[in-house]
Amino acid sequence: MSASSRILNLAVIPGDGIGQEVVAQGLKVLGTVLPQDVKLETTEYDFGARRYHATGETLTDADAEALKRHDAILLGAIGDPSVPSGVLERGFLLKLRFLFDHHVNLRPSKLLPGVATPLAGQPEIDFIVVREGTEGPYTGNGGSIRTGTPHEIATEVSVNTAFGVERVVRDAFARAQARPRKKLTLVHKNNVLAYAGHLWTNVFNRVAKEFPEVTTDYLHVDAATIFLVTDPGRFDVIVTDNLFGDIITDLAAAVSGGIGVAASGNINPSREFPSMFEPVHGSAPDIAGQGKADPTATVLSVALLLRHLGYEPEAARIETAVSADLAERGAGVRTTEQIGDALAVRVAG
Amino acid sequence: MSASSRILNLAVIPGDGIGQEVVAQGLKVLGTVLPQDVKLETTEYDFGARRYHATGETLTDADAEALKRHDAILLGAIGDPSVPSGVLERGFLLKLRFLFDHHVNLRPSKLLPGVATPLAGQPEIDFIVVREGTEGPYTGNGGSIRTGTPHEIATEVSVNTAFGVERVVRDAFARAQARPRKKLTLVHKNNVLAYAGHLWTNVFNRVAKEFPEVTTDYLHVDAATIFLVTDPGRFDVIVTDNLFGDIITDLAAAVSGGIGVAASGNINPSREFPSMFEPVHGSAPDIAGQGKADPTATVLSVALLLRHLGYEPEAARIETAVSADLAERGAGVRTTEQIGDALAVRVAG
Ligand SMILES: CC(C)[C@H](C(=O)O)[C@@H](O)C(=O)O
Ligand SMILES: CC(C)[C@H](C(=O)O)[C@@H](O)C(=O)O
Repeated sequence: MSASSRILNLAVIPGDGIGQEVVAQGLKVLGTVLPQDVKLETTEYDFGARRYHATGETLTDADAEALKRHDAILLGAIGDPSVPSGVLERGFLLKLRFLFDHHVNLRPSKLLPGVATPLAGQPEIDFIVVREGTEGPYTGNGGSIRTGTPHEIATEVSVNTAFGVERVVRDAFARAQARPRKKLTLVHKNNVLAYAGHLWTNVFNRVAKEFPEVTTDYLHVDAATIFLVTDPGRFDVIVTDNLFGDIITDLAAAVSGGIGVAASGNINPSREFPSMFEPVHGSAPDIAGQGKADPTATVLSVALLLRHLGYEPEAARIETAVSADLAERGAGVRTTEQIGDALAVRVAG
Repeated sequence: MSASSRILNLAVIPGDGIGQEVVAQGLKVLGTVLPQDVKLETTEYDFGARRYHATGETLTDADAEALKRHDAILLGAIGDPSVPSGVLERGFLLKLRFLFDHHVNLRPSKLLPGVATPLAGQPEIDFIVVREGTEGPYTGNGGSIRTGTPHEIATEVSVNTAFGVERVVRDAFARAQARPRKKLTLVHKNNVLAYAGHLWTNVFNRVAKEFPEVTTDYLHVDAATIFLVTDPGRFDVIVTDNLFGDIITDLAAAVSGGIGVAASGNINPSREFPSMFEPVHGSAPDIAGQGKADPTATVLSVALLLRHLGYEPEAARIETAVSADLAERGAGVRTTEQIGDALAVRVAG
């Protein structure tokens, strides 16, 4: 390795179901797009259902320590029907978001030419959602008493801090500022969730003063779902709470081509810990191992990963390649590998 | 009044914005459809922005006592930009739901012939959402400390009881049982909100045993929003928590013709307190007083009101009239009153 060469030290978590297949294509495209002087070093980690069944573990302290040593993490999918609901979600996915302080959960929604949408009239859709990733109702606060009896009471506590809200709101303003339309929409439910709503709204309005070029507005989450189907073009950047973000980004993915092409980043902007990038789709056990999975969302997640690490031209090259590939796709059926190969050829060319 | 005559003693709350206009048409249709031997007695109440500005009151104890004496309540819309967000929502709408124990928040979604949908391909949509109305994150539990400082912490507590969940789940099963498809979907987020999710899922599975004819399934709320736009025909009856219900019913209204035709009932099935029926649309101050508002959602809310009080044939007559009117609407623009007149003629004929 020459003195001037750089290293990209990547943790790879293929995970369950189709994870393995799509990640292989993501890595292929990544290997092709990286500049010659960057050496890609990957370490594969076996997390998910298999590991859980074998050892009962989801993510140990030693695992977390190992993951910390990487520049970034690429994840395929975690989840399998053989594992009780919530175990891998809370024991691995959410645990990692909290451990690595992934407070910016970034989910772009762009309806690319040639991609089918359930909406009539092929509307223009091009926005990003900045979802808070470490607070809200996701903190695991809550409990139950008299569990399993007719007198059970179960609570879930949404925890919101000025610190946590401000950093994600600030990140969203910066992203809005950098986009041509410079528009930021706060989505919450401040007419009902008054305490959290008050905090979010106040912080949002205060930070807005520092970004006079950014146009702002506010929508209740219920109204936001209406606009996502009747007028998705109105959105540029959305910033929202963890749970609202979970809900509206699945809807956003659905209207902009489906979760098959939806990428996401669990980002720690300070780079104190590695950020994790993953397709929004799950493990899809029904089609696993058949070469049917579309690796596009994973490849787009690789673009987000590259952008996060400062490889902007390479990220853009991947996105251009994906756009071109989707535009020319037509009705022909290709395997996971064929799509990966086609994308690799495009980013190389 | 002859000895055999019945009385329908209705509280009418026109409220703000277009409320007055649409309620007038709802009452017109109600007066026309009621059987000869039923005497309609209405008392109008002035709640909403005007009252709030004049007296600072939203709903006093005396108001609540007065409303209790009625068989049901018909509401137009409450809300005005001149009142701070949340004041009328929490001070009137939610207060009434809690005071009158409106635990079944009923929201049908049916895409009627001739009605535009943002979805491509005019899919078949015919389902109802049974939203819990008195628990979840709507209880006003929560608070903040160090408010307004960089160290603020704000919480919202979702409160869920076996009592509250079971009664609404039971109501939903009964409604599913009474429909041809007999299918009930539980919508929650039990992989993340583990305590509340566990309670909802357990109660749901237990009550399911008493309804062996009802097919059941479960969806996370984020996945539910995807299906609402990609395959809304899969739904028959949905039962869900207060907040998830708020979000998915707005989306459901949007895909099935818009909030202009979406009706809702805030129902106390025990009839201990009067139930309240209202269009899902708000007060729409921008078009108030211009005769532009569509009274259809209010008229459909009157149908829900009649069904709740046992006037099934009359409820069905209204729904048939609305279907016929919508199917023949075309592009011609009619005033609020013209639509009300047309519907009154149809239910009379
Ligand atoms: C799997 C689940 C814990 C997760 C979430 O709720 O955040 C998923 O839905 C997502 O959006 O990444
Ligand atoms: C106005 C608001 C309090 C209310 C709610 O959140 O329940 C509304 O959105 C609704 O759906 O009836």
